Amino acid sequence: MYRTHTCGELRISDVNKEVTLSGWAAIVRDKGALLWIDLRDRYGITQLVMDENYTSKELFETARSIGREFVLQATGTVIERASKTNKIPTGEIEIKVTELKILNASKTPPFTIQDDTDGGDDLRMKYRYLDLRRNAVQKNLLFRSNLAIESRKYLAGIGFIEVETPNLIKSTPEGARDFVVPSRMNKGQFYALPQSPQTFKQILMVAGFDKYFQIVKCFRDEDLRADRQPEFTQIDCEMSFVHQEDILNTFEGMTRHLFKNVLNIELGDFPRMTYDEAMRRFGSDKPDMRFEMEFSDLTDVAKGKGFPVFDSAESVLAICAPGCAGYSRKQVDELTEWVKRPQIGAKGLVYVKLEEDGSLKSSVDKFYSQEDLKQWAERCGAKTGDLLLVLCGEEEKTRKQLCELRLEMGTRLELRKAGDFKPLWVLDFPLLEWDEEENRFFAMHHPFTSPKPNDIPKMESNDRQVLKSMRADAYDLVINGSEIGGGSIRIHDRDLQARNFKLLGFTQEEAEAQFGFLLGAFEFGAPPHGGIAFGFDRLCSVMNGASSIRDFIAFPKNNQGRDMMIDAPDAINPKQLEELGIKIVESKP
Amino acid sequence: MYRTHTCGELRISDVNKEVTLSGWAAIVRDKGALLWIDLRDRYGITQLVMDENYTSKELFETARSIGREFVLQATGTVIERASKTNKIPTGEIEIKVTELKILNASKTPPFTIQDDTDGGDDLRMKYRYLDLRRNAVQKNLLFRSNLAIESRKYLAGIGFIEVETPNLIKSTPEGARDFVVPSRMNKGQFYALPQSPQTFKQILMVAGFDKYFQIVKCFRDEDLRADRQPEFTQIDCEMSFVHQEDILNTFEGMTRHLFKNVLNIELGDFPRMTYDEAMRRFGSDKPDMRFEMEFSDLTDVAKGKGFPVFDSAESVLAICAPGCAGYSRKQVDELTEWVKRPQIGAKGLVYVKLEEDGSLKSSVDKFYSQEDLKQWAERCGAKTGDLLLVLCGEEEKTRKQLCELRLEMGTRLELRKAGDFKPLWVLDFPLLEWDEEENRFFAMHHPFTSPKPNDIPKMESNDRQVLKSMRADAYDLVINGSEIGGGSIRIHDRDLQARNFKLLGFTQEEAEAQFGFLLGAFEFGAPPHGGIAFGFDRLCSVMNGASSIRDFIAFPKNNQGRDMMIDAPDAINPKQLEELGIKIVESKP
Repeated sequence: MYRTHTCGELRISDVNKEVTLSGWAAIVRDKGALLWIDLRDRYGITQLVMDENYTSKELFETARSIGREFVLQATGTVIERASKTNKIPTGEIEIKVTELKILNASKTPPFTIQDDTDGGDDLRMKYRYLDLRRNAVQKNLLFRSNLAIESRKYLAGIGFIEVETPNLIKSTPEGARDFVVPSRMNKGQFYALPQSPQTFKQILMVAGFDKYFQIVKCFRDEDLRADRQPEFTQIDCEMSFVHQEDILNTFEGMTRHLFKNVLNIELGDFPRMTYDEAMRRFGSDKPDMRFEMEFSDLTDVAKGKGFPVFDSAESVLAICAPGCAGYSRKQVDELTEWVKRPQIGAKGLVYVKLEEDGSLKSSVDKFYSQEDLKQWAERCGAKTGDLLLVLCGEEEKTRKQLCELRLEMGTRLELRKAGDFKPLWVLDFPLLEWDEEENRFFAMHHPFTSPKPNDIPKMESNDRQVLKSMRADAYDLVINGSEIGGGSIRIHDRDLQARNFKLLGFTQEEAEAQFGFLLGAFEFGAPPHGGIAFGFDRLCSVMNGASSIRDFIAFPKNNQGRDMMIDAPDAINPKQLEELGIKIVESKP
Repeated sequence: MYRTHTCGELRISDVNKEVTLSGWAAIVRDKGALLWIDLRDRYGITQLVMDENYTSKELFETARSIGREFVLQATGTVIERASKTNKIPTGEIEIKVTELKILNASKTPPFTIQDDTDGGDDLRMKYRYLDLRRNAVQKNLLFRSNLAIESRKYLAGIGFIEVETPNLIKSTPEGARDFVVPSRMNKGQFYALPQSPQTFKQILMVAGFDKYFQIVKCFRDEDLRADRQPEFTQIDCEMSFVHQEDILNTFEGMTRHLFKNVLNIELGDFPRMTYDEAMRRFGSDKPDMRFEMEFSDLTDVAKGKGFPVFDSAESVLAICAPGCAGYSRKQVDELTEWVKRPQIGAKGLVYVKLEEDGSLKSSVDKFYSQEDLKQWAERCGAKTGDLLLVLCGEEEKTRKQLCELRLEMGTRLELRKAGDFKPLWVLDFPLLEWDEEENRFFAMHHPFTSPKPNDIPKMESNDRQVLKSMRADAYDLVINGSEIGGGSIRIHDRDLQARNFKLLGFTQEEAEAQFGFLLGAFEFGAPPHGGIAFGFDRLCSVMNGASSIRDFIAFPKNNQGRDMMIDAPDAINPKQLEELGIKIVESKP
């Protein structure tokens, strides 16, 4: 037996007990006649003590040979500490060691195993097994494990069945790029790894499973941005005989349950907003609702006053930064530079300060009277001491730029508070999204999303604007500006699905080849159904106010899709290629 | 709202309630003036009734248009049935329908949606969404979902953390064949899908996670036998600071919990047996312990009496079939033919009948006296009325053949009772397995398994027999003759791991290239650790006394590794191949 207790559980009430602990030497302090070791495991830290007065010379020598991260087994008596600490739960006791065994030695780690480590990203990824020893990272993965347990508890508790769908499926070019897997038994053919279990969960509804969920790995071979991973995890759900309302209520319930049971936070209202409204008021389909700073449209009052920049703009939009009228020239210049960075791309920034004396001071004073500016301020609901920030240009772009500026101001004004969680349902997403490059429509959610019943007659229109105006029974759950879940009511009628495929540019043959099994299934009694999928990695990070999902993934890949620890991907054996019947195309020099 | 109740919940106490149900038309019975529909969903069946006396003509016409598997929504009043049935829980009531809506039509299914369907395997696989509607299949997947929930409940309850390990890892030729995934961002390189999270769970132990588990998909590109799938699920577990005893106790606990909480069965003892003993007594490392019929070794008493077949055999082994002395000539001949089939491969079968009159009758009477045969019978513990069945030949082969014969006799004598569960730990597996074809040793469990401490000095031996005699801290959990779990104490010392790789024929460079990260991790304080993995699909089937794991997988693949429903694998787009930098090698005509 390697231990009688963990390193986190002994208390003052255990004094005089004979115990054996195992763990890692976090810190060794050698004061000559006295030597202390902080012994660490997942559960905590317990101090070991050795004293020349009672510790054998041999044991003392063993102790002196111990370096950081050695694995030890120590037996001894629990005693009360002379100098107690309340920094750790075991801080009132220590172990007077009578036996000490080195279970394994350790080289000196390349970085310190502490909350604020000195290891850079690359080093930490390469030595992930050491990085994972840090309390901060272990805490994140414990959180994740716990969140999964509570998700399952909630869903199983209301009758959902977890069904495992296959990972070796078929490549469907619609949507993101698939990872593919060459088949040895069917040479020249490939499986694909699922981007989501979408069609399988719909098949399960056709099969009568009624309420399905799965916490499941999904795969997308995309160029990786800082916060994307080639493999990621979803809480994937589907229900039969439901309208949108049933789904919103069910998953509002789950979200409340998770916040309550994992974070002990009671979430407030889950307000609802249409996509159009969200875009108009916040320039985003995932607005951060922890603060207001809504958009005001100044186009009609700002144009036609002789300021050429506004006059030639499609849209003039403003936000009101409360209490910022005192911003210095330098501060405003800095903000202007900020919006002009290529990531934002604005041409410039116009401001209006509502001074304490009641006057309005603006960068466009010479084009606009005090009356004009007052009209702007009124429309923005600004009051004395506030600062209007105005952007202009093509409507869609200006919205996006102002959305970024709003978030930046929210951050600067500390309105996006950690620990404050504001959920929002965004509803009625457009059915279609026009792709300029490919000159065709794509499904905004996915090809199985149901148009709103009133919009179905528009499906055969030849007018791009009419098609763009179609709305879907599609919804996103947004928390603090992050989309944590999205879903839709699905099409369950074969003909409607066929019409939707046609709208997306599928020939009948293509639709049949890729999704024939689903169209077929719809012919044998498909029930009305719909669902949602939560980004599980994202949910973890949002609930912890963290910026990156990587901190919640045990073995993440870097931006080149590499696992730095195991050094994958890697070349494979020529015999393997031969068995698979594939060849690597030598790249041109 | 599509329904107020499910089709499984209305009872006599609900009479007079106005309800709305949704589901599938399982059966439509049209008796002219009366029409009944059995409405089915996952939860049960409720009878709808329409009566010319009170049902509108229009509604009646709708009802008459309904075929099997139509999706319906029915509103009406719960009434007491005239002719009640106790075959279904809703059998005391029916719904007097006032509104009936066809939510979706259905073509006539290609097979009946019943427990004993008329669909062949191929048809059922192709129309899996219909097959999955059958109660028998739904029950299996509900069982599976429930078993996963209980597994997680038990493990989380004793401090295990579920950690998701990556699916895109590195190919390691040792062991079974990997599925590989070409990398687009790192052209010419490949990921591999994990055969198990083995190295990652060990890394998690080095990282201090202490107790890890995961219910996880694993992948093996093997030629598929009837009961193997290219993707399968494991309950994968690992613990730090443990000896074998700790692991056996922990997972005996889990197994008891699952049987108790999912099947309501209290398992009896978990006896333990070494690999050598299991092979000697039952000719198998996974003996079915529901019945005895142990092997007796007759070699010393059967040889040297002039029967050339036995005289030239390495081993003469027998089992005693209780109460079978009355077997007719035909029965014995038939058994002889059975052992001579190529799947078994015995040359012949010798029998000894212990007749009621005390005499012994044998097929080798002319070589053996009554005294000789009595000695055999005594050694086999046979009594009057029993039948000895004797095989001979090369020891290992004879054991395998007799093992098959034992199982066959157990089946014929109905000693392998459904609902009777007999667990067994098989311990002390050999460390190495000699491969005649490759002329080298392979790890019997895997290359990370620890040799028994006493056997470590044998590792550098050049004597094949000495190496063969090495035993490992490796164990299997067997229930009713099926291996449901297997594991080992792992090596945690870098040098020992390097010596083991060498023993398995790895050069230092190969070991470094494939497992350098693990060897590296062992240098930074690896704790003693060990683990186990349960075959989750197998566990489902064993607990249900089923013969195939396929019945417990929602979307299984056939023996050619194909998903018949979605028709995968399939050809992919030339653009995809180009992006991946690979080419299909045209097979020679």
